[in-house]
Amino acid sequence: MGQFDLVSNLFSLTIATMFASGIFFFLAQRQVAPAYRVGVIVSGIVVFIAGYHYYRIWESWGAAYALEAGNYVATGTPFNEAYRYADWLITVPLLLVELVAVLGLAKMVAGPMLRNLTVASFAMILLGYPGEISSIAGTRWLFWFLAMIPFLYILYVLFVQLGKAIESESGEVASLFKRARAVIAVSWWVYPIAFVLPMIGLSGAVGEVGLQVGYSIADLIAKAFYGVVIYQIAKAKSDADGYQPA
Amino acid sequence: MGQFDLVSNLFSLTIATMFASGIFFFLAQRQVAPAYRVGVIVSGIVVFIAGYHYYRIWESWGAAYALEAGNYVATGTPFNEAYRYADWLITVPLLLVELVAVLGLAKMVAGPMLRNLTVASFAMILLGYPGEISSIAGTRWLFWFLAMIPFLYILYVLFVQLGKAIESESGEVASLFKRARAVIAVSWWVYPIAFVLPMIGLSGAVGEVGLQVGYSIADLIAKAFYGVVIYQIAKAKSDADGYQPA
Repeated sequence: MGQFDLVSNLFSLTIATMFASGIFFFLAQRQVAPAYRVGVIVSGIVVFIAGYHYYRIWESWGAAYALEAGNYVATGTPFNEAYRYADWLITVPLLLVELVAVLGLAKMVAGPMLRNLTVASFAMILLGYPGEISSIAGTRWLFWFLAMIPFLYILYVLFVQLGKAIESESGEVASLFKRARAVIAVSWWVYPIAFVLPMIGLSGAVGEVGLQVGYSIADLIAKAFYGVVIYQIAKAKSDADGYQPA
Repeated sequence: MGQFDLVSNLFSLTIATMFASGIFFFLAQRQVAPAYRVGVIVSGIVVFIAGYHYYRIWESWGAAYALEAGNYVATGTPFNEAYRYADWLITVPLLLVELVAVLGLAKMVAGPMLRNLTVASFAMILLGYPGEISSIAGTRWLFWFLAMIPFLYILYVLFVQLGKAIESESGEVASLFKRARAVIAVSWWVYPIAFVLPMIGLSGAVGEVGLQVGYSIADLIAKAFYGVVIYQIAKAKSDADGYQPA
């Protein structure tokens, strides 16, 4: 019962945080210079999409278990893990768009980089899904390895290519950019690690609860907290440009 | 029956007040100078999050009791007190952010202060929760004392450190700031006092109704009324800066 409630309450907290931070980004984008607003607006879009999916996830969790004689038992209606993949399919490319957009790079640099990052994120998520819904360890591992290739490519673009592109930035912007990149590099690892948990024997109720808690906290960091860092980059760049909000 | 209805109606009143004041803050932030808008926007975020949680609390209250032969009896579905903790976990740090943000302090002063206040509020709420869900008096008291340490630290920061930081403010701003601080210092005491009620023999229906009424009124004061004071500070500072809304 405590386990069901922990997950349910964490989902609810995530819904509230996502929508609330979305409203913040939509209103606060007016505080930054027009050139950096799209990055902040996209941050808001991402958390709104996540808030919607967490509402569906919360509902699905409530439908999958029912209280019987003081204990929660499975109702037979399966918990729909596909909402997460649907969410990631839309939000993961947008998270990368945020970062590139807020840096206000030249179109010639940003354009191809965004295209490659978008293709790589689609590939990463679409390759992960056949593994996620399989209960055969071999199939899970195969798709895990395949999905890791575009993931490592994304990290390569962020750390090597984008690293070069920001060399001309001021100290504050550069250090905020590194923070945003570190948020991605650390929090995104939760997903492939959580994916592996059932394959290394962590299954049953504890495994499921650990998975849902891990995913939710990773999403809060990778979307809401990350969005705040994106906003800070936009603000620092606006200040550096001498922009005065009106 | 009167007791169930009293609580249910108060929850409904709180939902309406929170969302309505949120809309006010979101629209009225444009009346103040850009430098103080984030504080007012965050006020709106806080009451929106609270409105969401009061909606869930109201639902949970309705599911926990059912009308039988003219009396409300427990249905067996427990009333979910965790919504309050989820709410506080997000809103308490933000309430402190509002106050520091609206003062427009220098980054060097505001940055470390905000970090310390945020860590202290997380510690306060996370330490309170194990006590809240325990029915053992010793456990409740232990976590009450532990949670009081960060609470007293927050009061120290507000009254000593932040007190020094506002010494240069004009008379009107200083007196509004003292009002906002007094709202925190008075209304936040409701929570540790309400927590103690069941430990001093006030349990059963009267204790539960007293707790819910106390929490709801405290939340209305600490979030909606407090947000109005934050807005007044923002307006007074904008006036002092000679800002003309466009």
